[in-house]
Amino acid sequence: MVKLLDNGYLNQIDVWGSDQRIIESARMSTAKGFLGWEPGPCPVCEGRGSTESMGHLFAPCLSCEGKGKIAGDAKLLKRLWDYGHSTPFEMAGLTIEVKAPIMVFREWHRHRVPFGYSEMSARYVPLPDENYVPTVDRLMVRGGTNKQAQSTGTALHDVDAIAWLAELADVYEHAQRVYKLGLGMGVPKELARLPVPVGRYSAMRATSNLRGWLGFCKLRAAETAQYEIRVYAHAVGDLIRELFPRTYEVAAASVGLAT
Amino acid sequence: MVKLLDNGYLNQIDVWGSDQRIIESARMSTAKGFLGWEPGPCPVCEGRGSTESMGHLFAPCLSCEGKGKIAGDAKLLKRLWDYGHSTPFEMAGLTIEVKAPIMVFREWHRHRVPFGYSEMSARYVPLPDENYVPTVDRLMVRGGTNKQAQSTGTALHDVDAIAWLAELADVYEHAQRVYKLGLGMGVPKELARLPVPVGRYSAMRATSNLRGWLGFCKLRAAETAQYEIRVYAHAVGDLIRELFPRTYEVAAASVGLAT
Amino acid sequence: MVKLLDNGYLNQIDVWGSDQRIIESARMSTAKGFLGWEPGPCPVCEGRGSTESMGHLFAPCLSCEGKGKIAGDAKLLKRLWDYGHSTPFEMAGLTIEVKAPIMVFREWHRHRVPFGYSEMSARYVPLPDENYVPTVDRLMVRGGTNKQAQSTGTALHDVDAIAWLAELADVYEHAQRVYKLGLGMGVPKELARLPVPVGRYSAMRATSNLRGWLGFCKLRAAETAQYEIRVYAHAVGDLIRELFPRTYEVAAASVGLAT
Amino acid sequence: MVKLLDNGYLNQIDVWGSDQRIIESARMSTAKGFLGWEPGPCPVCEGRGSTESMGHLFAPCLSCEGKGKIAGDAKLLKRLWDYGHSTPFEMAGLTIEVKAPIMVFREWHRHRVPFGYSEMSARYVPLPDENYVPTVDRLMVRGGTNKQAQSTGTALHDVDAIAWLAELADVYEHAQRVYKLGLGMGVPKELARLPVPVGRYSAMRATSNLRGWLGFCKLRAAETAQYEIRVYAHAVGDLIRELFPRTYEVAAASVGLAT
Repeated sequence: MVKLLDNGYLNQIDVWGSDQRIIESARMSTAKGFLGWEPGPCPVCEGRGSTESMGHLFAPCLSCEGKGKIAGDAKLLKRLWDYGHSTPFEMAGLTIEVKAPIMVFREWHRHRVPFGYSEMSARYVPLPDENYVPTVDRLMVRGGTNKQAQSTGTALHDVDAIAWLAELADVYEHAQRVYKLGLGMGVPKELARLPVPVGRYSAMRATSNLRGWLGFCKLRAAETAQYEIRVYAHAVGDLIRELFPRTYEVAAASVGLAT
Repeated sequence: MVKLLDNGYLNQIDVWGSDQRIIESARMSTAKGFLGWEPGPCPVCEGRGSTESMGHLFAPCLSCEGKGKIAGDAKLLKRLWDYGHSTPFEMAGLTIEVKAPIMVFREWHRHRVPFGYSEMSARYVPLPDENYVPTVDRLMVRGGTNKQAQSTGTALHDVDAIAWLAELADVYEHAQRVYKLGLGMGVPKELARLPVPVGRYSAMRATSNLRGWLGFCKLRAAETAQYEIRVYAHAVGDLIRELFPRTYEVAAASVGLAT
Repeated sequence: MVKLLDNGYLNQIDVWGSDQRIIESARMSTAKGFLGWEPGPCPVCEGRGSTESMGHLFAPCLSCEGKGKIAGDAKLLKRLWDYGHSTPFEMAGLTIEVKAPIMVFREWHRHRVPFGYSEMSARYVPLPDENYVPTVDRLMVRGGTNKQAQSTGTALHDVDAIAWLAELADVYEHAQRVYKLGLGMGVPKELARLPVPVGRYSAMRATSNLRGWLGFCKLRAAETAQYEIRVYAHAVGDLIRELFPRTYEVAAASVGLAT
Repeated sequence: MVKLLDNGYLNQIDVWGSDQRIIESARMSTAKGFLGWEPGPCPVCEGRGSTESMGHLFAPCLSCEGKGKIAGDAKLLKRLWDYGHSTPFEMAGLTIEVKAPIMVFREWHRHRVPFGYSEMSARYVPLPDENYVPTVDRLMVRGGTNKQAQSTGTALHDVDAIAWLAELADVYEHAQRVYKLGLGMGVPKELARLPVPVGRYSAMRATSNLRGWLGFCKLRAAETAQYEIRVYAHAVGDLIRELFPRTYEVAAASVGLAT
C-alpha cells in the first residue's frame, strides 16, 4: 500500500499479463511467438534461416523471415508503442484500490473505456469523516503555465493561506456535524449526504488494461493536470514500472511519467 | 427545456436516427429495408410473392420470403427489443444538456459506454451558488422496499426534517462563504472548491445512443434508484417518447418508464 | 488446450480476479469486505453485533448491521447477478487463444466492449491451409426453431450432403492453389488472400472481463446461435466453471450454459 | 452515394452535431457558449469586459475574462484537437452505409469503441454474387515502405498479374457454384456459405461519433493501411470535410487526410 496525500492510499489488488504477453499478442498477426528480448540468432530455426514447412507454405523460417537472426523483441515493443499499435497493450492489466477525495474521483471517472469502478456509496453507508486538507505550500503553488491551477487573479499571501485552511477546517466540521445530525434524526442516508464537501475522502476499486492505464497517466500525470490527481497517476505509473518494466520503459516519456 | 428539482433542467440539444432507422439497420442482415409499420401486402413485390432476381439467387421475393404479405415492422421492432438485439438501437441517439446536483452526476457518470460527457468544471470557473434543497415531503419519504433510500434506523419527524433543512441551508451558506473567500484571496480555483458540497448544482452535456439511454433509464428510472436521479431518468424517457415513439412503446415497460 | 471442431482449439492464457474479488468489489459501496461464502456468525464483530467505532459514525457492526450474523456471500453473489449489478463482474477476467474458422471470428468480433482481439493476419503471413469441414451429421441438422440455421426450403438428403462436402473440398483446394500461386508469383500477400474462403481457419488472442465473457456466452451459447460458435462459447463457459465456480453457478442458467 | 472499388459504395445515412456543437460542449467546463469563429469584440459583454453578475461571483465578463475581446473559436477548436481534448468530438457523429469486400470489413470491425455495426449476414440471406477484382495496376503496386502490402519476395510481372486475375475469377465462379448448389440442395444457409471467399462483397451500416471516425481515418487512411480500406477511409474523410469543415481543417493533417 502506498500512502498518498494526507489520508489517501493506492493498493495493488490484481495484475494480469506481462511484457511478454504483449509481444505474444502482437505476434498473433504473424503467427510467431515471443522470440526473446535481445538481438541474436533466431531461436526458432536456431540461426539456420530455414525450417521444415509444418503445413505453412514456405521453407524459409517465418520467425526470422529467413535471416537466421532476430532484432530482439525489445525493439518490437518500442515500435508497437511508438506507432500506436495499442491492441496488444489490452492483453495485460491492473486492478487497484484507491482512497482519494471526491474531487479527484470526479476527474478519474471521466475515464470511461476500458475502465471499471466500484466505489463506496453514501447511499449505503455513512462516509467516514476524513477530508483532504492541502498544505500551505500546495496552496501557494501558482500553476505556472497551468492556467486551471491558477487563482482568479490575486496573488495569495501565506498568512491568507493559513487563515483559509482554518476556515476550510470549519466548513468540514460544520458539514460533518449536519451530516451526522441528519443521519441521527432519520434523514435518509442518500439525502443526509447533501452537505458532504467534495474534499471528503471516498474509496474505490478501479480496473483497466494497460492501454487504459497508460492513457490515464497521459492525461492525469501531465503538468496541466491537477496536482492531487497527478499524485495518483504517478503512483499508478510506479506500479506499472514495477510490474511491466519494459512497457514502462517504452511508454513513460510519452505519457509524462518519470524516465 | 424541462425544469427539474429546485434548480435543475434538461434540455434537448441534438437528436439523430429514428424508429425507422432502427428497422433499416436490423434489416441489413437480410438485405431488406423498412417495409412499413403495419401488416399488409408486401410493398416490394406488391403482394405477388416473387420478384425478378436482381443478382440475387432466388426469384421468390426476399422481403416477404415469397408470402406476398408482411407482418408489419412494429412487430419486428418489438421482437428486436424483447430478444435483446441491441445493435440496431445504437443507430439513433440523443444529446442533452442537464443541470443537476453533483451527487446526481456522480451516479450518472458510472454509465461509461456508450456515453460522452462535458461538464462544467470548478477548475476553470467558479461554480454558481446554487444548491439542491429537498422538500420536507421528500425527506419524509421512507424508501419502502428501497433499502438505500432509508435512514439509518430512526423514524424522521417532520419538525426534525424542517430543522435539518435549516441546518443544511447554513452549511450551504458557510461553504459558499469560504469558497468565495478563497477565490478572493487568490487560492487556486481547483483548491478553493474543496468546501463545495455534493448538493451543489453543476451542468453538463451528455450524449449517447438509444441503447445507452434505455440502459440508463433501466437502472436510474427504477424504484430502487435515488429519487433525484429518477427525476432525470424519467425526463430522458419523456424525450424518447416524443422523439422515438415506437421504440418507447416496445421498451418502456421493461426499463421502468411509464406506459 | 481444448480441441474444437475439426482443426480448432481454445487455450487459456491469463486469468485474473476470482469469485471473492467480485464480492470485495461489490462491498466497496458499503465499505465492507468479503465475509465468507456461507451463513454464520459475523466474522467482523465475532457475532457480537457491535464494534468500536474506528472513525465511523456508529457503534453497531457495519458488516452485519448489528445482527451479529451474516447471510453468506454466496447469497450476495446471486443477488448481484440476478439484479444486473454488473460492475463487480468487471473485476475478474480471462485471456484466451482460439483457432476457429473466419466465419466464426466474423461473429465473435461483433462483441466490441469490453473485448480486445489480436488475430493472425493474411496481410502479414500466409494463412495455413486449414479449413473447416462440417460432418454429414452437422449438415443434416435442421435448425428446429432456429430459422437462421435452416436451409432455404428444400430438405437435405444425406447422399446430397456427402456430395456437397466433396464439392466443398474441391473449392477449398482450388482456392488454396490460386492463393499459393499468387504468393509465388509475387502478388502482394494482402491481395493474394482474396480467394481464401470464410471456412479457412485463423487464430487470435481474445481478452475480456467476466461481464464481457458472460454476455458473449448469453448470445453465442444460445440455441439460436450458429452451432460452430456455440462450440466455442460452451468451451469458454467450461473455463469459467473451472476458474470462477461460484459465478458460474449463479450465472450459467441465465446465459444458456450447462447447469 | 459514392461508388468505391469495383462494386462498393459509401452512403450517408444520418449526421448529428456540428463544428459549433463541439465548441459549445468544450465550453461547458467554463460555463460559456459558442462565441463566434473569428477574433473580435466579446459578444457577451459587447467589448466592455464586464457584465452584471447573474449569480456568478465576479463582475468581469466570464466569456472574455474581462478582456473585452475574444481570440475566436477557430483557435479553440484547433487547440482542443492538438492537445487531445477528445471528449467534445464525441458530441457530433455520422451513420453511413457501406458495401465492401469481407476482407475490408474484417479490418473495419477491429474498431470497437465507439462504433456500432449492422451487417448483412449469410446466415439470413444468400450473399449476392459480387466479388472484388483488383485491377492489374493495383496488383503491380509494390508496397514501398509498406511491408504488409508487399509480396513474399518475387517481383510480379504484368503477364503473371493478368493470368492470376483469371485464376481468381475461376475461384470466385467455382465458389459461387458450390455455394448455390448447397443452397439448392438444402444445406443450411449458415454452412452453405463456407466456400464464400473473403473477396466477396457484403454491406453494413456503421455509426460512430467524430472522435471514432477520426481515429478510424488515422489508422485506415494511413499509407501503411491496405489500399482497399484506405479508399473507404478517404471517403469517410470527404464526408467529414463536407459536414464538419472546421473540424476537418484542424484534424485532417494529423490523421492522414488530404489538406
